[in-house]
Amino acid sequence: MASVIGLHHVAFAHEVEGELHLLLEKHLGLQTSHVESADGFIERMIPVGGPPFVQTLEVCGPGVIERFVERRGPGLHHVAFEVDDLAGMLSDLGAAGVRLVDDRPRPGGMGHSIAFVHPSSFGGLLLELVEATDEKEGRAEQ
Amino acid sequence: MASVIGLHHVAFAHEVEGELHLLLEKHLGLQTSHVESADGFIERMIPVGGPPFVQTLEVCGPGVIERFVERRGPGLHHVAFEVDDLAGMLSDLGAAGVRLVDDRPRPGGMGHSIAFVHPSSFGGLLLELVEATDEKEGRAEQ
Repeated sequence: MASVIGLHHVAFAHEVEGELHLLLEKHLGLQTSHVESADGFIERMIPVGGPPFVQTLEVCGPGVIERFVERRGPGLHHVAFEVDDLAGMLSDLGAAGVRLVDDRPRPGGMGHSIAFVHPSSFGGLLLELVEATDEKEGRAEQ
Repeated sequence: MASVIGLHHVAFAHEVEGELHLLLEKHLGLQTSHVESADGFIERMIPVGGPPFVQTLEVCGPGVIERFVERRGPGLHHVAFEVDDLAGMLSDLGAAGVRLVDDRPRPGGMGHSIAFVHPSSFGGLLLELVEATDEKEGRAEQ
């Protein structure tokens, strides 16, 4: 059975001003290790003493992150767990009646496969599941 | 200089219904390792493959967690970093002009010393700093 390996990241959504990654570096010495553009936001990964990461999602266009920040202001957006078998986990969760945002793995940041679970099935928590693909040659789905 | 060791926990605040710890156990096999009562809430720690933890804060009376949930609904509340020297870190941050909620360490969950940093200094993120006291006999402040 598919299982959770660990906490992969916790994500914080914000507008351009008050960029969290700059404040984490300035005040706590934490450095951004990875930056990439996504659909409507810039994603940065900041290791906190190694993984897990703080992930920042900076609005740079229309989309879900812009809508979140418009509605709630800057804030914590989701938590991501690393799993050993994402397709298997989604199959198990679907069979258990858990509502999935993504019913199959899709490409995410850092070349990993990801899927989101709907917050209605986790008491209001938006949960991302991540399968790291860097140690599994040929399994990346992008 | 005081420094960040790692991510200690990410906290989720909720009402009694839809208890996140039960859903994490039911659907993902994650078990609660620690429960204690605090002022207006019940705090549970759920290791995600060892530390870091998901922490749940269940409203059971008046206070800051009740007000958060009334205002925003259930949601992610704060992130906690473990540091090696909390008093030194607070001194460094204060000297750098960072606004602190707690300007000295105070007793927190699991017997640790904790302090909160004001979200206005971290772009809207409520940040907790934790110094684990279990390996340091005689340093616990409770």
